[in-house]
Amino acid sequence: MIVILGSTGSIGVNTLQIASRFDIKIEALVAGNNVDLLNKQIAAYKPKFVAIGSCQDRHKVDHTKVFCGEDGIIELLSLCQSQIIVNALVGYAGLRPTLESIKLGKKVALANKESLVVAGHLLDISCITPIDSEHFGLWYLLNHRPFNKLYITASGGAFRDWELDKIEKASFADALKHPTWSMGDKITIDSATMTNKLFELLEAKWLFDTNNIDAVIEKKSIVHALAEFRDGSTTAHIANVDMKLPIAFALKGEISEEILKPIDILGMGTIEFLPIKSDRYPIWQIKDHLLNNPHLGVVVNAANEEAITAFKNNHCSFFGMSDIVLKAYKYFENVQPQTIEDIVQINNEVRKYVKS
Amino acid sequence: MIVILGSTGSIGVNTLQIASRFDIKIEALVAGNNVDLLNKQIAAYKPKFVAIGSCQDRHKVDHTKVFCGEDGIIELLSLCQSQIIVNALVGYAGLRPTLESIKLGKKVALANKESLVVAGHLLDISCITPIDSEHFGLWYLLNHRPFNKLYITASGGAFRDWELDKIEKASFADALKHPTWSMGDKITIDSATMTNKLFELLEAKWLFDTNNIDAVIEKKSIVHALAEFRDGSTTAHIANVDMKLPIAFALKGEISEEILKPIDILGMGTIEFLPIKSDRYPIWQIKDHLLNNPHLGVVVNAANEEAITAFKNNHCSFFGMSDIVLKAYKYFENVQPQTIEDIVQINNEVRKYVKS
Repeated sequence: MIVILGSTGSIGVNTLQIASRFDIKIEALVAGNNVDLLNKQIAAYKPKFVAIGSCQDRHKVDHTKVFCGEDGIIELLSLCQSQIIVNALVGYAGLRPTLESIKLGKKVALANKESLVVAGHLLDISCITPIDSEHFGLWYLLNHRPFNKLYITASGGAFRDWELDKIEKASFADALKHPTWSMGDKITIDSATMTNKLFELLEAKWLFDTNNIDAVIEKKSIVHALAEFRDGSTTAHIANVDMKLPIAFALKGEISEEILKPIDILGMGTIEFLPIKSDRYPIWQIKDHLLNNPHLGVVVNAANEEAITAFKNNHCSFFGMSDIVLKAYKYFENVQPQTIEDIVQINNEVRKYVKS
Repeated sequence: MIVILGSTGSIGVNTLQIASRFDIKIEALVAGNNVDLLNKQIAAYKPKFVAIGSCQDRHKVDHTKVFCGEDGIIELLSLCQSQIIVNALVGYAGLRPTLESIKLGKKVALANKESLVVAGHLLDISCITPIDSEHFGLWYLLNHRPFNKLYITASGGAFRDWELDKIEKASFADALKHPTWSMGDKITIDSATMTNKLFELLEAKWLFDTNNIDAVIEKKSIVHALAEFRDGSTTAHIANVDMKLPIAFALKGEISEEILKPIDILGMGTIEFLPIKSDRYPIWQIKDHLLNNPHLGVVVNAANEEAITAFKNNHCSFFGMSDIVLKAYKYFENVQPQTIEDIVQINNEVRKYVKS
């Protein structure tokens, strides 16, 4: 039995498919504003509890136990018996449910990487299983062998092959054209700016307890992760572009049946790994500093969420988003959040700073 | 403490380096006819026993306990206390020492793949650890997970980029120009004909108890093996071209210190996997039949060893070698060796047939 936070997004929909396949019951569904899809999911999966983002939509939901808003999710969690909470909420909004789930002694199957980005140093990592292709790949490769360094790969996002001066004029819609993955808007923009990969490095830092981690571009999104072991061996995780694999492992542990069709190694053509450069991805300038000062993740995340809103509303250009984040990062570089309350306060301050 | 059979070859020399590094004593050294190098090794490693290929060379060896010939190796083995025998002899000559070592209850670190090719169905696999990059790579990747299929890679050998009609006129010296590995003559010729990879498939069949195994060309010899798991993940083993890695693991089990420098993934350029085609590698025609009839390995091996001698002596062309092997394979396809004595007899018959 599981709870799915973010059931109408891409991860949520895939999670429901995996749950059906393995006869896992759905105790509760939490969605944002896609009430039509939520109602279909309610009809199909018959959850005991439901929550929706806005209390104004409550009457549209075909269920007798509907919670709403942030507090509604927390109340819903406290009523659930499930041992696994799938957190596929988008952005900072995912943090409180992650904290609450851990407090309740649940295992969190975490697609909301922002939870780790903003508060990794305050979370009990042993309760968290990541739903992310790259971190799943690393886990699959490690097998308790001592490693030197871990690599995750990036597709390079929508503008990887654009001329730099063209990118400056790119629209929000342009940035949503991801070359290999079909995902939600926020993560797709984060892929175009490389912020998503920066977040995944932080995520990996907490999950695998190392700073020896880097990202490289692999344009086909076939190789998801590489592990460089101490003996001199390097291994790579290769799989088709589909979140069902990490989701299935997060729900079931080791799996010995087919979740995806395997890659056709003779049909996949050439593979190469390329460096991520700061001229195309300005956010990459702070990579090393951020890995050494991971408590600044809350600053990057808050500024980034506000920057995306600004870009979406035509208040800044594509590269303007990175400018916003880098400026906020510089401005707040001396903050030292020690508690969740500090995180919440800094998050608010950064957003206020960016908006002004 | 270990015994090294074939100490003056490439594997032998690397094994001595690894033994020095890990303070492993050398109980006995067995060489073919490179007496000069053997004498240097005796001075450096002070083995208790020594054996040499030809009894006529015995007096040239700087040691008081020198055995000679095939029987000499067997006698030497019976006197040794070592629990690990490294068998890096070349070709069919390696079989008897492998059998004897297993009979004596030793662990065999086996670089002599022909032992498995000719008599895999009669050997106790639990006593064997392969010294072969591809099989080491597979072992490194598997970690007890259920797999669908295993792949090993081939460089393609000396003529992989030659025009087919030029290959027909190629000399023995041409065929020794391996593009990526520096190895002994026999295995380098076997790489050019793809016989080496055919043998490694048989080796993998016995070691991993599967027929779901294939080979693909990877020209850089950086990726050595791939494992396609049941869940849909594929993993790859990537390492620099150096036998010290499989040797170190064969001698020490799991290792958590640097044996090789890791691959620079940003510097390695493009990687691709290509099919092995029978027009360039005629021996590949019998791959599936041989994997389904692995007891015919003795036929392929005997014919191949004779064919290499014929090619070396200008008695046949490069493709003539494959003709010889394929003709012998057809002629002997109904043999059913049940015992080692059958193997010995068939080996002799095939050689007589090829010579006539």
